[in-house]
Amino acid sequence: MSLVVVGSAGIDTVETPSGRVHDVVGGSAVYFALAASLFGPVKVAANIGADYPEAVWEVLRRRGADLGGVRRYADHASFRWSGRYRGDMNAAETLRTDLNVLALPPEPPASYGGARFVFLANMGPEVQLRCLERLGGEVVFADTMNLWIESARPALLALLRRVQGLVLNDAEARQLTGEDNLIRAGAALLLLGPQVVVLKKGEHGAFLFARGFHFALPAYPTTRVVDPTGAGDSFAGGLLGSLAAAGSLDPPGLRRAMAYGIVTASFTVEEFSTRGLERLERAQVDQRLEELREFVRL
Amino acid sequence: MSLVVVGSAGIDTVETPSGRVHDVVGGSAVYFALAASLFGPVKVAANIGADYPEAVWEVLRRRGADLGGVRRYADHASFRWSGRYRGDMNAAETLRTDLNVLALPPEPPASYGGARFVFLANMGPEVQLRCLERLGGEVVFADTMNLWIESARPALLALLRRVQGLVLNDAEARQLTGEDNLIRAGAALLLLGPQVVVLKKGEHGAFLFARGFHFALPAYPTTRVVDPTGAGDSFAGGLLGSLAAAGSLDPPGLRRAMAYGIVTASFTVEEFSTRGLERLERAQVDQRLEELREFVRL
Repeated sequence: MSLVVVGSAGIDTVETPSGRVHDVVGGSAVYFALAASLFGPVKVAANIGADYPEAVWEVLRRRGADLGGVRRYADHASFRWSGRYRGDMNAAETLRTDLNVLALPPEPPASYGGARFVFLANMGPEVQLRCLERLGGEVVFADTMNLWIESARPALLALLRRVQGLVLNDAEARQLTGEDNLIRAGAALLLLGPQVVVLKKGEHGAFLFARGFHFALPAYPTTRVVDPTGAGDSFAGGLLGSLAAAGSLDPPGLRRAMAYGIVTASFTVEEFSTRGLERLERAQVDQRLEELREFVRL
Repeated sequence: MSLVVVGSAGIDTVETPSGRVHDVVGGSAVYFALAASLFGPVKVAANIGADYPEAVWEVLRRRGADLGGVRRYADHASFRWSGRYRGDMNAAETLRTDLNVLALPPEPPASYGGARFVFLANMGPEVQLRCLERLGGEVVFADTMNLWIESARPALLALLRRVQGLVLNDAEARQLTGEDNLIRAGAALLLLGPQVVVLKKGEHGAFLFARGFHFALPAYPTTRVVDPTGAGDSFAGGLLGSLAAAGSLDPPGLRRAMAYGIVTASFTVEEFSTRGLERLERAQVDQRLEELREFVRL
Protein backbone atom coordinates (compact mmCIF):
# COMPACT_ATOMS: atom_id res chain seq x y z
CA MET A 1 0.00 0.00 0.00
CA SER A 2 1.30 3.43 -0.96
CA LEU A 3 -0.31 6.11 1.24
CA VAL A 4 0.94 9.41 2.69
CA VAL A 5 -0.85 11.60 5.22
CA VAL A 6 0.11 15.20 5.92
CA GLY A 7 -1.58 16.80 8.91
CA SER A 8 -1.30 17.75 12.54
CA ALA A 9 -0.13 16.00 15.69
CA GLY A 10 -1.43 17.78 18.76
CA ILE A 11 -1.98 17.56 22.46
CA ASP A 12 -5.66 17.77 23.42
CA THR A 13 -7.69 18.52 26.51
CA VAL A 14 -11.24 17.30 26.04
CA GLU A 15 -14.41 17.35 28.11
CA THR A 16 -17.45 15.25 27.22
CA PRO A 17 -20.48 14.00 29.19
CA SER A 18 -18.35 10.89 29.93
CA GLY A 19 -15.51 12.80 31.62
CA ARG A 20 -12.44 14.89 30.94
CA VAL A 21 -8.93 14.09 29.73
CA HIS A 22 -6.01 16.49 30.03
CA ASP A 23 -3.00 16.68 27.66
CA VAL A 24 -3.72 13.56 25.65
CA VAL A 25 -2.51 12.63 22.18
CA GLY A 26 -4.50 13.94 19.21
CA GLY A 27 -4.18 15.59 15.81
CA SER A 28 -5.50 14.76 12.35
CA ALA A 29 -2.39 12.93 11.10
CA VAL A 30 -2.22 10.80 14.25
CA TYR A 31 -5.85 9.65 14.14
CA PHE A 32 -5.63 9.12 10.38
CA ALA A 33 -2.40 7.12 10.58
CA LEU A 34 -3.61 4.92 13.45
CA ALA A 35 -6.71 4.09 11.41
CA ALA A 36 -5.00 3.64 8.03
CA SER A 37 -2.17 1.55 9.48
CA LEU A 38 -4.70 -1.24 10.12
CA PHE A 39 -4.81 -1.70 6.35
CA GLY A 40 -1.09 -1.42 5.53
CA PRO A 41 1.96 0.78 6.10
CA VAL A 42 1.35 4.54 5.99
CA LYS A 43 3.84 7.42 5.65
CA VAL A 44 3.22 10.22 8.15
CA ALA A 45 4.16 13.90 7.87
CA ALA A 46 3.49 16.20 10.83
CA ASN A 47 5.31 18.76 12.95
CA ILE A 48 5.63 18.14 16.69
CA GLY A 49 7.15 20.12 19.55
CA ALA A 50 9.66 19.08 22.17
CA ASP A 51 6.85 18.05 24.51
CA TYR A 52 5.07 15.54 22.25
CA PRO A 53 4.84 12.07 23.85
CA GLU A 54 6.61 9.16 22.18
CA ALA A 55 4.26 6.24 22.88
CA VAL A 56 1.85 6.73 19.99
CA TRP A 57 4.73 6.69 17.46
CA GLU A 58 5.78 3.33 18.87
CA VAL A 59 2.34 1.94 18.08
CA LEU A 60 2.60 3.27 14.54
CA ARG A 61 6.13 1.90 14.09
CA ARG A 62 4.92 -1.53 15.13
CA ARG A 63 2.26 -1.25 12.43
CA GLY A 64 4.91 -0.56 9.82
CA ALA A 65 4.40 3.21 9.49
CA ASP A 66 7.14 5.40 8.01
CA LEU A 67 7.67 8.28 10.45
CA GLY A 68 10.45 9.99 8.50
CA GLY A 69 8.13 12.95 7.97
CA VAL A 70 7.39 13.49 11.67
CA ARG A 71 9.62 16.49 12.49
CA ARG A 72 10.32 17.33 16.10
CA TYR A 73 11.15 21.00 16.71
CA ALA A 74 13.08 21.21 19.98
CA ASP A 75 12.47 24.96 20.31
CA HIS A 76 8.69 24.78 19.86
CA ALA A 77 5.79 23.48 21.88
CA SER A 78 3.32 21.10 20.24
CA PHE A 79 -0.01 22.25 18.83
CA ARG A 80 -2.62 22.25 21.59
CA TRP A 81 -6.40 22.10 21.36
CA SER A 82 -8.92 22.21 24.14
CA GLY A 83 -12.59 21.54 23.51
CA ARG A 84 -15.89 20.37 24.89
CA TYR A 85 -18.80 18.27 23.63
CA ARG A 86 -22.31 18.29 25.11
CA GLY A 87 -25.67 16.61 24.57
CA ASP A 88 -25.71 14.56 21.36
CA MET A 89 -22.02 15.50 20.86
CA ASN A 90 -22.53 16.28 17.17
CA ALA A 91 -20.39 19.45 17.38
CA ALA A 92 -17.24 20.38 19.29
CA GLU A 93 -16.99 23.68 21.11
CA THR A 94 -13.38 24.90 20.93
CA LEU A 95 -12.27 26.40 24.23
CA ARG A 96 -8.67 27.17 23.29
CA THR A 97 -6.19 26.69 20.45
CA ASP A 98 -2.42 27.23 20.65
CA LEU A 99 -0.89 26.80 17.20
CA ASN A 100 2.74 26.60 18.39
CA VAL A 101 4.59 24.29 16.00
CA LEU A 102 1.54 24.09 13.71
CA ALA A 103 2.48 27.61 12.54
CA LEU A 104 5.44 26.06 10.69
CA PRO A 105 4.49 24.58 7.30
CA PRO A 106 4.75 20.79 7.13
CA GLU A 107 7.52 19.58 4.86
CA PRO A 108 6.92 16.01 3.74
CA PRO A 109 10.33 14.45 2.92
CA ALA A 110 11.31 13.98 -0.70
CA SER A 111 11.17 10.23 -0.12
CA TYR A 112 7.36 10.49 0.25
CA GLY A 113 7.04 11.81 -3.32
CA GLY A 114 5.49 9.39 -5.75
CA ALA A 115 3.17 7.72 -3.25
CA ARG A 116 0.04 6.79 -5.14
CA PHE A 117 -2.50 7.78 -2.45
CA VAL A 118 -2.21 11.03 -0.47
CA PHE A 119 -4.42 12.47 2.26
CA LEU A 120 -4.09 16.18 2.95
CA ALA A 121 -5.73 16.57 6.36
CA ASN A 122 -7.40 19.83 7.34
CA MET A 123 -4.87 22.67 6.89
CA GLY A 124 -4.98 26.00 5.07
CA PRO A 125 -5.57 25.31 1.37
CA GLU A 126 -2.37 27.15 0.36
CA VAL A 127 -0.42 24.78 2.60
CA GLN A 128 -2.31 21.81 1.14
CA LEU A 129 -1.49 23.01 -2.40
CA ARG A 130 2.23 23.25 -1.55
CA CYS A 131 2.16 19.72 -0.12
CA LEU A 132 0.38 18.49 -3.23
CA GLU A 133 3.03 20.07 -5.45
CA ARG A 134 5.79 18.53 -3.38
CA LEU A 135 4.25 15.06 -3.20
CA GLY A 136 2.42 14.56 -6.45
CA GLY A 137 0.16 11.56 -5.92
CA GLU A 138 -2.25 9.92 -8.30
CA VAL A 139 -5.21 9.87 -5.90
CA VAL A 140 -5.18 12.87 -3.57
CA PHE A 141 -7.96 13.36 -1.02
CA ALA A 142 -8.27 16.57 1.00
CA ASP A 143 -10.21 17.61 4.10
CA THR A 144 -11.10 21.21 4.97
CA MET A 145 -13.05 23.23 7.54
CA ASN A 146 -15.39 26.22 7.98
CA LEU A 147 -12.48 28.60 8.66
CA TRP A 148 -10.93 28.06 5.19
CA ILE A 149 -14.28 28.04 3.40
CA GLU A 150 -14.87 31.47 4.87
CA SER A 151 -11.40 32.99 4.78
CA ALA A 152 -9.57 31.26 1.91
CA ARG A 153 -12.21 30.28 -0.61
CA PRO A 154 -10.19 31.07 -3.80
CA ALA A 155 -7.27 28.91 -2.66
CA LEU A 156 -9.65 26.17 -1.59
CA LEU A 157 -11.35 26.21 -5.01
CA ALA A 158 -7.90 26.04 -6.66
CA LEU A 159 -7.09 23.03 -4.48
CA LEU A 160 -10.37 21.31 -5.36
CA ARG A 161 -9.50 21.52 -9.08
CA ARG A 162 -6.32 19.55 -8.31
CA VAL A 163 -7.57 16.75 -6.04
CA GLN A 164 -9.39 13.51 -6.80
CA GLY A 165 -11.29 13.32 -3.52
CA LEU A 166 -12.81 15.64 -0.92
CA VAL A 167 -13.84 14.62 2.60
CA LEU A 168 -15.89 17.11 4.61
CA ASN A 169 -18.80 17.28 7.01
CA ASP A 170 -22.41 18.19 6.28
CA ALA A 171 -22.19 21.74 7.66
CA GLU A 172 -19.06 22.42 5.60
CA ALA A 173 -20.71 21.03 2.46
CA ARG A 174 -23.66 23.35 2.98
CA GLN A 175 -21.38 26.32 3.66
CA LEU A 176 -19.17 25.67 0.64
CA THR A 177 -22.01 25.18 -1.85
CA GLY A 178 -24.82 27.30 -0.42
CA GLU A 179 -27.11 24.27 -0.85
CA ASP A 180 -29.21 23.17 2.15
CA ASN A 181 -30.10 19.87 0.51
CA LEU A 182 -27.13 17.54 1.01
CA ILE A 183 -27.74 15.58 -2.20
CA ARG A 184 -27.61 18.83 -4.18
CA ALA A 185 -24.57 19.90 -2.18
CA GLY A 186 -22.81 16.65 -3.10
CA ALA A 187 -23.60 17.13 -6.78
CA ALA A 188 -22.39 20.74 -6.62
CA LEU A 189 -19.10 19.68 -5.00
CA LEU A 190 -18.42 17.18 -7.79
CA LEU A 191 -18.60 20.10 -10.24
CA LEU A 192 -15.72 21.82 -8.39
CA GLY A 193 -13.22 19.17 -9.42
CA PRO A 194 -13.08 16.04 -7.27
CA GLN A 195 -14.23 12.70 -8.71
CA VAL A 196 -15.28 11.52 -5.27
CA VAL A 197 -16.92 13.57 -2.51
CA VAL A 198 -17.45 12.01 0.91
CA LEU A 199 -19.79 13.81 3.23
CA LYS A 200 -19.49 12.93 6.93
CA LYS A 201 -22.59 13.30 9.11
CA GLY A 202 -21.34 12.13 12.52
CA GLU A 203 -23.95 9.96 14.24
CA HIS A 204 -25.96 9.98 10.98
CA GLY A 205 -23.27 8.22 8.94
CA ALA A 206 -21.88 9.32 5.60
CA PHE A 207 -22.71 9.88 1.93
CA LEU A 208 -20.42 9.23 -1.01
CA PHE A 209 -20.91 11.01 -4.33
CA ALA A 210 -19.07 10.06 -7.50
CA ARG A 211 -19.92 10.61 -11.15
CA GLY A 212 -22.89 8.39 -11.93
CA PHE A 213 -22.84 6.70 -8.54
CA HIS A 214 -23.82 7.57 -4.99
CA PHE A 215 -23.93 5.60 -1.78
CA ALA A 216 -25.02 6.07 1.86
CA LEU A 217 -24.22 4.36 5.12
CA PRO A 218 -25.48 5.00 8.64
CA ALA A 219 -22.97 5.18 11.48
CA TYR A 220 -22.10 1.87 13.13
CA PRO A 221 -24.69 1.55 15.94
CA THR A 222 -22.45 1.88 18.95
CA THR A 223 -24.15 2.50 22.29
CA ARG A 224 -21.00 3.99 23.81
CA VAL A 225 -19.94 7.39 22.48
CA VAL A 226 -17.33 8.66 24.92
CA ASP A 227 -15.35 11.19 22.85
CA PRO A 228 -15.99 12.11 19.21
CA THR A 229 -12.57 13.80 18.82
CA GLY A 230 -10.75 12.35 15.82
CA ALA A 231 -13.77 10.47 14.46
CA GLY A 232 -13.59 12.30 11.13
CA ASP A 233 -9.86 11.70 10.69
CA SER A 234 -10.23 8.05 11.75
CA PHE A 235 -13.01 7.72 9.19
CA ALA A 236 -10.72 9.19 6.52
CA GLY A 237 -7.92 6.85 7.63
CA GLY A 238 -10.13 3.77 7.29
CA LEU A 239 -11.47 5.02 3.96
CA LEU A 240 -8.09 5.85 2.38
CA GLY A 241 -6.39 2.86 4.01
CA SER A 242 -8.96 0.56 2.44
CA LEU A 243 -8.71 2.29 -0.97
CA ALA A 244 -4.91 2.32 -0.95
CA ALA A 245 -4.76 -1.35 0.07
CA ALA A 246 -7.14 -2.27 -2.78
CA GLY A 247 -5.48 0.18 -5.16
CA SER A 248 -8.64 1.21 -6.98
CA LEU A 249 -11.61 3.59 -6.93
CA ASP A 250 -14.25 1.33 -8.50
CA PRO A 251 -17.76 1.38 -6.96
CA PRO A 252 -17.39 -1.87 -4.95
CA GLY A 253 -14.07 -0.59 -3.57
CA LEU A 254 -15.60 2.77 -2.68
CA ARG A 255 -18.54 1.10 -0.90
CA ARG A 256 -16.17 -1.12 1.07
CA ALA A 257 -13.87 1.82 1.89
CA MET A 258 -16.82 3.86 3.21
CA ALA A 259 -17.79 0.94 5.43
CA TYR A 260 -14.22 0.61 6.73
CA GLY A 261 -14.18 4.35 7.45
CA ILE A 262 -17.46 4.14 9.38
CA VAL A 263 -16.37 1.11 11.37
CA THR A 264 -12.89 2.42 12.20
CA ALA A 265 -14.39 5.69 13.46
CA SER A 266 -16.78 3.75 15.70
CA PHE A 267 -13.82 2.40 17.69
CA THR A 268 -12.36 5.90 18.04
CA VAL A 269 -15.47 7.39 19.64
CA GLU A 270 -15.79 4.60 22.19
CA GLU A 271 -12.69 5.78 24.10
CA PHE A 272 -11.02 9.09 24.91
CA SER A 273 -8.19 10.25 22.64
CA THR A 274 -6.54 7.54 20.49
CA ARG A 275 -7.04 4.71 22.99
CA GLY A 276 -9.70 2.95 20.95
CA LEU A 277 -7.45 2.93 17.87
CA GLU A 278 -4.19 2.05 19.58
CA ARG A 279 -5.54 -1.25 20.93
CA LEU A 280 -7.45 -2.12 17.82
CA GLU A 281 -6.79 -5.25 15.76
CA ARG A 282 -7.81 -5.62 12.13
CA ALA A 283 -9.97 -8.66 12.97
CA GLN A 284 -12.19 -6.48 15.19
CA VAL A 285 -12.64 -4.04 12.33
CA ASP A 286 -13.59 -6.82 9.95
CA GLN A 287 -16.09 -8.22 12.46
CA ARG A 288 -17.84 -4.85 12.78
CA LEU A 289 -17.86 -4.53 9.01
CA GLU A 290 -19.96 -7.69 8.87
CA GLU A 291 -22.26 -6.33 11.59
CA LEU A 292 -22.64 -3.09 9.64
CA ARG A 293 -23.43 -5.09 6.50
CA GLU A 294 -26.22 -6.86 8.38
CA PHE A 295 -27.44 -3.55 9.88
CA VAL A 296 -28.05 -2.06 6.42
CA ARG A 297 -29.01 -5.16 4.46
CA LEU A 298 -32.21 -4.35 2.56
CA MET B 1 -55.10 -6.02 3.82
CA SER B 2 -56.73 -5.14 7.15
CA LEU B 3 -55.56 -1.69 8.31
CA VAL B 4 -57.23 1.14 10.23
CA VAL B 5 -55.84 4.62 10.82
CA VAL B 6 -57.23 7.01 13.42
CA GLY B 7 -55.89 10.55 13.27
CA SER B 8 -56.49 14.09 12.09
CA ALA B 9 -57.65 15.68 8.86
CA GLY B 10 -56.74 19.34 8.77
CA ILE B 11 -56.38 22.41 6.65
CA ASP B 12 -52.83 23.73 6.53
CA THR B 13 -51.06 26.93 5.62
CA VAL B 14 -47.37 26.28 5.06
CA GLU B 15 -44.37 28.39 4.18
CA THR B 16 -41.05 26.86 3.07
CA PRO B 17 -38.03 28.18 1.15
CA SER B 18 -39.86 26.94 -1.99
CA GLY B 19 -42.98 29.04 -1.47
CA ARG B 20 -46.21 29.27 0.48
CA VAL B 21 -49.53 27.44 0.24
CA HIS B 22 -52.72 28.63 1.92
CA ASP B 23 -55.60 26.44 3.16
CA VAL B 24 -54.42 23.16 1.67
CA VAL B 25 -55.30 19.62 2.68
CA GLY B 26 -53.31 18.02 5.50
CA GLY B 27 -53.59 16.00 8.69
CA SER B 28 -51.99 12.80 9.92
CA ALA B 29 -54.80 10.44 8.87
CA VAL B 30 -54.92 11.95 5.39
CA TYR B 31 -51.19 11.63 4.69
CA PHE B 32 -51.13 8.16 6.26
CA ALA B 33 -54.13 6.93 4.26
CA LEU B 34 -52.86 8.32 0.94
CA ALA B 35 -49.57 6.48 1.53
CA ALA B 36 -51.02 3.22 2.87
CA SER B 37 -53.69 3.03 0.16
CA LEU B 38 -50.92 2.35 -2.39
CA PHE B 39 -50.54 -1.05 -0.72
CA GLY B 40 -54.20 -1.99 -0.27
CA PRO B 41 -57.51 -0.68 1.08
CA VAL B 42 -57.31 1.29 4.34
CA LYS B 43 -60.08 2.26 6.79
CA VAL B 44 -59.90 5.91 7.84
CA ALA B 45 -61.24 7.52 11.03
CA ALA B 46 -60.98 11.31 11.41
CA ASN B 47 -63.18 14.24 12.31
CA ILE B 48 -63.65 17.02 9.76
CA GLY B 49 -65.53 20.30 9.79
CA ALA B 50 -68.09 21.70 7.37
CA ASP B 51 -65.31 23.43 5.41
CA TYR B 52 -63.15 20.39 4.61
CA PRO B 53 -62.63 19.93 0.85
CA GLU B 54 -63.99 16.80 -0.80
CA ALA B 55 -61.37 16.08 -3.48
CA VAL B 56 -58.86 14.16 -1.36
CA TRP B 57 -61.57 11.71 -0.23
CA GLU B 58 -62.33 11.01 -3.87
CA VAL B 59 -58.71 9.99 -4.40
CA LEU B 60 -58.91 7.67 -1.40
CA ARG B 61 -62.22 6.19 -2.51
CA ARG B 62 -60.71 5.38 -5.91
CA ARG B 63 -57.95 3.55 -4.05
CA GLY B 64 -60.51 1.43 -2.21
CA ALA B 65 -60.38 3.21 1.16
CA ASP B 66 -63.26 2.82 3.63
CA LEU B 67 -64.24 6.33 4.71
CA GLY B 68 -67.07 5.29 7.02
CA GLY B 69 -65.06 6.67 9.92
CA VAL B 70 -64.62 10.16 8.44
CA ARG B 71 -67.18 12.18 10.37
CA ARG B 72 -68.18 15.59 9.11
CA TYR B 73 -69.44 17.96 11.82
CA ALA B 74 -71.57 20.61 10.14
CA ASP B 75 -71.40 22.92 13.15
CA HIS B 76 -67.59 22.86 13.46
CA ALA B 77 -64.68 24.20 11.45
CA SER B 78 -61.89 21.83 10.47
CA PHE B 79 -58.63 21.61 12.40
CA ARG B 80 -56.20 24.23 11.09
CA TRP B 81 -52.43 24.36 11.32
CA SER B 82 -50.11 27.03 10.08
CA GLY B 83 -46.35 26.53 10.05
CA ARG B 84 -43.03 27.44 8.53
CA TYR B 85 -39.84 25.58 7.63
CA ARG B 86 -36.45 27.19 7.07
CA GLY B 87 -32.89 26.22 6.15
CA ASP B 88 -32.44 22.44 6.16
CA MET B 89 -36.18 22.14 6.99
CA ASN B 90 -35.55 19.50 9.65
CA ALA B 91 -38.02 21.11 12.09
CA ALA B 92 -41.36 22.87 11.65
CA GLU B 93 -42.09 26.12 13.42
CA THR B 94 -45.77 26.23 14.33
CA LEU B 95 -47.25 29.67 13.75
CA ARG B 96 -50.84 28.91 14.68
CA THR B 97 -53.08 26.00 15.65
CA ASP B 98 -56.90 26.04 15.78
CA LEU B 99 -58.15 22.74 17.17
CA ASN B 100 -61.80 23.25 16.15
CA VAL B 101 -63.26 19.81 15.37
CA LEU B 102 -60.08 18.11 16.61
CA ALA B 103 -61.31 18.89 20.14
CA LEU B 104 -63.98 16.19 19.64
CA PRO B 105 -62.66 12.67 20.29
CA PRO B 106 -62.52 10.48 17.17
CA GLU B 107 -65.01 7.63 17.21
CA PRO B 108 -63.96 4.86 14.85
CA PRO B 109 -67.12 2.99 13.79
CA ALA B 110 -67.83 -0.43 15.27
CA SER B 111 -67.31 -1.91 11.80
CA TYR B 112 -63.57 -1.04 12.07
CA GLY B 113 -63.19 -3.31 15.11
CA GLY B 114 -61.26 -6.49 14.47
CA ALA B 115 -58.91 -5.00 11.87
CA ARG B 116 -55.59 -6.76 12.29
CA PHE B 117 -53.35 -3.68 11.83
CA VAL B 118 -54.09 -0.32 13.48
CA PHE B 119 -52.22 2.98 13.35
CA LEU B 120 -52.99 5.49 16.09
CA ALA B 121 -51.60 8.74 14.69
CA ASN B 122 -50.38 11.47 17.00
CA MET B 123 -53.15 12.33 19.48
CA GLY B 124 -53.32 12.56 23.26
CA PRO B 125 -52.42 9.15 24.70
CA GLU B 126 -55.74 8.94 26.60
CA VAL B 127 -57.55 9.34 23.28
CA GLN B 128 -55.26 6.75 21.69
CA LEU B 129 -56.00 4.32 24.54
CA ARG B 130 -59.76 4.77 24.07
CA CYS B 131 -59.39 4.11 20.34
CA LEU B 132 -57.33 1.04 21.09
CA GLU B 133 -59.99 -0.28 23.44
CA ARG B 134 -62.68 0.35 20.87
CA LEU B 135 -60.80 -1.20 17.95
CA GLY B 136 -58.74 -4.01 19.37
CA GLY B 137 -56.20 -4.90 16.70
CA GLU B 138 -53.47 -7.50 16.75
CA VAL B 139 -50.68 -5.18 15.59
CA VAL B 140 -51.17 -1.64 16.87
CA PHE B 141 -48.61 1.07 16.07
CA ALA B 142 -48.77 4.51 17.73
CA ASP B 143 -47.14 7.86 17.05
CA THR B 144 -46.71 10.61 19.66
CA MET B 145 -45.14 14.06 20.11
CA ASN B 146 -43.17 16.25 22.52
CA LEU B 147 -46.36 17.77 23.99
CA TRP B 148 -47.64 14.41 25.28
CA ILE B 149 -44.21 13.24 26.43
CA GLU B 150 -44.08 16.35 28.57
CA SER B 151 -47.69 16.72 29.70
CA ALA B 152 -49.15 13.18 29.67
CA ARG B 153 -46.26 10.82 30.36
CA PRO B 154 -48.16 8.36 32.62
CA ALA B 155 -50.90 7.86 30.01
CA LEU B 156 -48.28 7.56 27.26
CA LEU B 157 -46.42 4.88 29.24
CA ALA B 158 -49.72 3.03 29.78
CA LEU B 159 -50.33 3.19 26.02
CA LEU B 160 -46.83 1.88 25.25
CA ARG B 161 -47.50 -1.21 27.36
CA ARG B 162 -50.48 -1.96 25.11
CA VAL B 163 -49.08 -1.40 21.60
CA GLN B 164 -46.87 -3.56 19.39
CA GLY B 165 -45.14 -0.69 17.61
CA LEU B 166 -44.06 2.89 18.24
CA VAL B 167 -43.12 5.41 15.55
CA LEU B 168 -41.49 8.64 16.69
CA ASN B 169 -38.76 11.08 15.73
CA ASP B 170 -35.23 11.33 17.11
CA ALA B 171 -35.90 14.35 19.34
CA GLU B 172 -38.97 12.64 20.83
CA ALA B 173 -37.01 9.44 21.45
CA ARG B 174 -34.35 11.42 23.31
CA GLN B 175 -36.98 13.32 25.30
CA LEU B 176 -38.94 10.20 26.24
CA THR B 177 -35.91 8.14 27.33
CA GLY B 178 -33.42 10.78 28.50
CA GLU B 179 -30.80 9.05 26.32
CA ASP B 180 -28.78 11.22 23.92
CA ASN B 181 -27.43 8.19 22.07
CA LEU B 182 -30.16 7.06 19.66
CA ILE B 183 -29.15 3.40 19.78
CA ARG B 184 -29.51 3.43 23.57
CA ALA B 185 -32.77 5.35 23.21
CA GLY B 186 -34.10 2.67 20.86
CA ALA B 187 -33.16 -0.09 23.30
CA ALA B 188 -34.77 1.83 26.17
CA LEU B 189 -38.00 2.28 24.22
CA LEU B 190 -38.25 -1.48 23.57
CA LEU B 191 -38.25 -1.97 27.34
CA LEU B 192 -41.39 0.19 27.63
CA GLY B 193 -43.54 -2.35 25.80
CA PRO B 194 -43.45 -2.21 22.00
CA GLN B 195 -41.86 -5.07 20.04
CA VAL B 196 -40.90 -2.68 17.27
CA VAL B 197 -39.65 0.91 17.60
CA VAL B 198 -39.16 3.01 14.50
CA LEU B 199 -37.17 6.17 14.89
CA LYS B 200 -37.59 8.78 12.16
CA LYS B 201 -34.68 11.14 11.48
CA GLY B 202 -36.00 13.25 8.58
CA GLU B 203 -33.28 13.81 6.00
CA HIS B 204 -31.09 11.32 7.88
CA GLY B 205 -33.44 8.38 7.34
CA ALA B 206 -34.75 6.00 9.98
CA PHE B 207 -33.77 3.30 12.47
CA LEU B 208 -35.78 0.23 13.36
CA PHE B 209 -35.31 -1.56 16.67
CA ALA B 210 -36.84 -4.93 17.46
CA ARG B 211 -35.84 -7.60 19.95
CA GLY B 212 -32.62 -9.12 18.66
CA PHE B 213 -32.68 -7.17 15.42
CA HIS B 214 -32.01 -3.62 14.31
CA PHE B 215 -31.87 -1.94 10.95
CA ALA B 216 -31.06 1.47 9.45
CA LEU B 217 -31.86 3.24 6.20
CA PRO B 218 -30.89 6.67 4.91
CA ALA B 219 -33.57 8.88 3.39
CA TYR B 220 -34.17 8.42 -0.32
CA PRO B 221 -31.73 10.88 -1.96
CA THR B 222 -34.17 13.36 -3.42
CA THR B 223 -32.76 16.69 -4.57
CA ARG B 224 -36.14 18.41 -4.34
CA VAL B 225 -37.46 18.97 -0.83
CA VAL B 226 -40.33 21.42 -1.24
CA ASP B 227 -42.45 20.81 1.87
CA PRO B 228 -41.69 18.29 4.65
CA THR B 229 -45.24 18.50 6.08
CA GLY B 230 -46.73 15.01 6.37
CA ALA B 231 -43.44 13.20 5.69
CA GLY B 232 -43.61 11.34 9.00
CA ASP B 233 -47.23 10.25 8.52
CA SER B 234 -46.52 9.24 4.91
CA PHE B 235 -43.58 7.22 6.17
CA ALA B 236 -45.86 5.50 8.69
CA GLY B 237 -48.45 4.89 5.96
CA GLY B 238 -45.89 3.22 3.70
CA LEU B 239 -44.52 1.22 6.62
CA LEU B 240 -47.86 -0.03 7.94
CA GLY B 241 -49.31 -0.43 4.45
CA SER B 242 -46.43 -2.69 3.53
CA LEU B 243 -46.66 -4.66 6.80
CA ALA B 244 -50.44 -5.04 6.57
CA ALA B 245 -50.25 -6.14 2.94
CA ALA B 246 -47.62 -8.76 3.84
CA GLY B 247 -49.40 -9.64 7.08
CA SER B 248 -46.27 -10.30 9.11
CA LEU B 249 -43.59 -8.69 11.27
CA ASP B 250 -40.62 -10.91 10.37
CA PRO B 251 -37.24 -9.21 9.79
CA PRO B 252 -37.38 -9.28 5.96
CA GLY B 253 -40.89 -7.80 6.10
CA LEU B 254 -39.77 -5.11 8.55
CA ARG B 255 -36.79 -4.17 6.34
CA ARG B 256 -39.01 -3.95 3.29
CA ALA B 257 -41.66 -1.95 5.17
CA MET B 258 -39.04 0.57 6.35
CA ALA B 259 -37.88 0.99 2.76
CA TYR B 260 -41.46 1.52 1.58
CA GLY B 261 -41.95 4.10 4.35
CA ILE B 262 -38.81 5.98 3.32
CA VAL B 263 -39.67 5.92 -0.37
CA THR B 264 -43.31 6.94 0.09
CA ALA B 265 -42.25 9.89 2.25
CA SER B 266 -39.80 11.01 -0.45
CA PHE B 267 -42.71 11.64 -2.83
CA THR B 268 -44.55 13.63 -0.16
CA VAL B 269 -41.73 16.11 0.44
CA GLU B 270 -41.28 16.80 -3.28
CA GLU B 271 -44.57 18.71 -3.48
CA PHE B 272 -46.65 20.95 -1.25
CA SER B 273 -49.44 19.35 0.77
CA THR B 274 -50.65 15.94 -0.43
CA ARG B 275 -50.01 16.60 -4.13
CA GLY B 276 -47.03 14.23 -4.35
CA LEU B 277 -49.09 11.38 -2.87
CA GLU B 278 -52.35 12.01 -4.72
CA ARG B 279 -50.73 11.55 -8.13
CA LEU B 280 -48.55 8.67 -7.07
CA GLU B 281 -48.75 5.21 -8.63
CA ARG B 282 -47.49 2.06 -6.96
CA ALA B 283 -45.05 1.40 -9.83
CA GLN B 284 -43.21 4.65 -9.06
CA VAL B 285 -42.86 3.60 -5.44
CA ASP B 286 -41.47 0.22 -6.46
CA GLN B 287 -38.99 1.87 -8.82
CA ARG B 288 -37.65 4.12 -6.06
CA LEU B 289 -37.44 1.11 -3.75
CA GLU B 290 -35.00 -0.46 -6.22
CA GLU B 291 -33.03 2.80 -6.39
CA LEU B 292 -32.89 2.92 -2.59
CA ARG B 293 -31.71 -0.69 -2.53
CA GLU B 294 -28.85 0.25 -4.87
CA PHE B 295 -28.08 3.40 -2.82
CA VAL B 296 -27.44 1.34 0.34
CA ARG B 297 -26.04 -1.86 -1.17
CA LEU B 298 -22.83 -2.68 0.71
